[in-house]
Amino acid sequence: MPTAQDLSTLYLSAADVARLVDRLGLPACLHGVAQRLEHDFGRWTDFDKTARVASHSPDGVIELMPVSDESLYAFKYVNGHPKNTQSGLATVMAFGVLADVATGAPRLLASLTLATAIRTAAMSALAARVLARPGSRTMALIGNGAQSEFQALAFRELLGIDTLRVFDTDPRATAKLLRNLHGQGLRLVVCGSTAEAVRGADIVTTVTADKALVTIVTADMVEPGMHLNAVGGDCPGKTELSADVLQAASVFVEYEPQTRIEGDIQQMPTDFAVTEFWQVLAGRRPGRTSDTQVTVFDSVGFALEDHSALCFLEEAARHLGLGDRLSLVPDAADPKDLFGSLARPAATHAVRPEALAA
Amino acid sequence: MPTAQDLSTLYLSAADVARLVDRLGLPACLHGVAQRLEHDFGRWTDFDKTARVASHSPDGVIELMPVSDESLYAFKYVNGHPKNTQSGLATVMAFGVLADVATGAPRLLASLTLATAIRTAAMSALAARVLARPGSRTMALIGNGAQSEFQALAFRELLGIDTLRVFDTDPRATAKLLRNLHGQGLRLVVCGSTAEAVRGADIVTTVTADKALVTIVTADMVEPGMHLNAVGGDCPGKTELSADVLQAASVFVEYEPQTRIEGDIQQMPTDFAVTEFWQVLAGRRPGRTSDTQVTVFDSVGFALEDHSALCFLEEAARHLGLGDRLSLVPDAADPKDLFGSLARPAATHAVRPEALAA
Repeated sequence: MPTAQDLSTLYLSAADVARLVDRLGLPACLHGVAQRLEHDFGRWTDFDKTARVASHSPDGVIELMPVSDESLYAFKYVNGHPKNTQSGLATVMAFGVLADVATGAPRLLASLTLATAIRTAAMSALAARVLARPGSRTMALIGNGAQSEFQALAFRELLGIDTLRVFDTDPRATAKLLRNLHGQGLRLVVCGSTAEAVRGADIVTTVTADKALVTIVTADMVEPGMHLNAVGGDCPGKTELSADVLQAASVFVEYEPQTRIEGDIQQMPTDFAVTEFWQVLAGRRPGRTSDTQVTVFDSVGFALEDHSALCFLEEAARHLGLGDRLSLVPDAADPKDLFGSLARPAATHAVRPEALAA
Repeated sequence: MPTAQDLSTLYLSAADVARLVDRLGLPACLHGVAQRLEHDFGRWTDFDKTARVASHSPDGVIELMPVSDESLYAFKYVNGHPKNTQSGLATVMAFGVLADVATGAPRLLASLTLATAIRTAAMSALAARVLARPGSRTMALIGNGAQSEFQALAFRELLGIDTLRVFDTDPRATAKLLRNLHGQGLRLVVCGSTAEAVRGADIVTTVTADKALVTIVTADMVEPGMHLNAVGGDCPGKTELSADVLQAASVFVEYEPQTRIEGDIQQMPTDFAVTEFWQVLAGRRPGRTSDTQVTVFDSVGFALEDHSALCFLEEAARHLGLGDRLSLVPDAADPKDLFGSLARPAATHAVRPEALAA
């Protein structure tokens, strides 16, 4: 429990997090976050969970994602503005906080744009390690934007994927992916369409960004035994898989109340059967039951993943000595005397409000 | 709209906000925030509103309070841990963020512990200016803790209250209030009970902190024409007024869906009639209609008040040149290439995860 003496908050800027990832190496970060995800999803019932709170506007969405267990409270602020890239801004910008449940004191504030990409990819790979056919080596990667390389490396690291069949409607995105993944030990096959990329793949990962009900994968593309990792469909009105793909598959989700609103299953009746992934990890529900079954991980991104990422960042930053301190909380001599911490206010205005408005 | 060049976030620490309040003077801040509150509550329908998202634990609560209009998104993080003062921590610690709706970029991160006290007091006084009898000069102040002096000065500034009848179950709290309000132009009458303090008052302000269904004000204490400003009852299980006080009064609230859960009206049937304060400001519903009517402002604290406070802080900090800059958002050369902003990761682990766990 913090005392009045150590009320400062560890602050990890975007540059600090990039430095942290560079120092540890992205593969170690993917493994480290995946380990924490497995641990945290394994103790699912310890957490007080809420579907995220979204505020939609014409150009995007801003969301708050809180979650807590008995000792730590975490939340993430995250936006999604696909048009941002036109003005040189990232589509997704995020930061998050860890606080002590016992006192409410904020202990960590961290930029989470990079960590969101890492935890999303680690979560996808963790789910696929449980749900995809053993021995999966080839992955189709549909959508070659900001998240795509993280998915590629997470699947290389956690599943041993060695071949990527890549496609994007924007050839510049694919060119960027090829540049970034050069020399990473992955065989890269550039395809001319989603159907071509999907053909023969063990795993199909969709990470497209359009905020629209777009059908990326249709039933005719799906082969027996495939695992579909649907990452891009993550808010109301944004889907990637056609309804008949979902109908013919076993669908796994993070947190059902949130995925019903945001995931690909928003197209389906509310009684469409899904399994929460933690139940498979805990041995309460089966995952894949045959080599011909089609499995879908309808990923939308859940607050618990950010909790895991924030804990990973906090530990790694302490280990590496990274970050600064912020004073978000007043360091009052007497916490019952907030007023006494101010200089004595004059009985009349020091500055008239009109002067301030000027 | 920010560009890649100015993506930093203005940061106001707890000390910066205290400096800001000291420089302007608390009275000017109370007036300035009240002006913004009146403006923002006057355009109520411009805002996308949500009841705050609360996470309860045995010792307290942590809440997120988002609100947005078409240009600005605001949220506050705030806790309430009454036992904190035993270990030298404040009961309430808060910080908040303003972000651009058009892009999702965070433009301000500010400590809000002090600003929460100011906006709560300004909101109380604004409501009382509309709802209390004209010419009110005497206020009972029940609960003499961290919020009490702010209430006292807000009512002095905005209503011309000149006499306070004060009571707290803890005499040390009252002694602190007397010390802090010495020389502020207020006549201070120390009372031995709530009933004594309330007697003859025009306005009764309750700012008690116990997280319990405590009855502070009962029907026998209430006199015709009084205005009750119930500030302390602000979460489930925490009330201050007895049900028959509410029954006999006209009750005004900030945002009905939230107050039904958190306010003193949590004791009442769900169809108990209340009026949202903005409707009175907008002339859509009557406020006080007679000199004998008892009015209650059942205040719980709504996100819009923090939006107003954050906007006030941002403008004042710019005016005074206060604050630092944070980099919460990566300043990527190519926003579609998050991966490319990292140093090229090695194909094998730079640091093995086991080494990190050590």
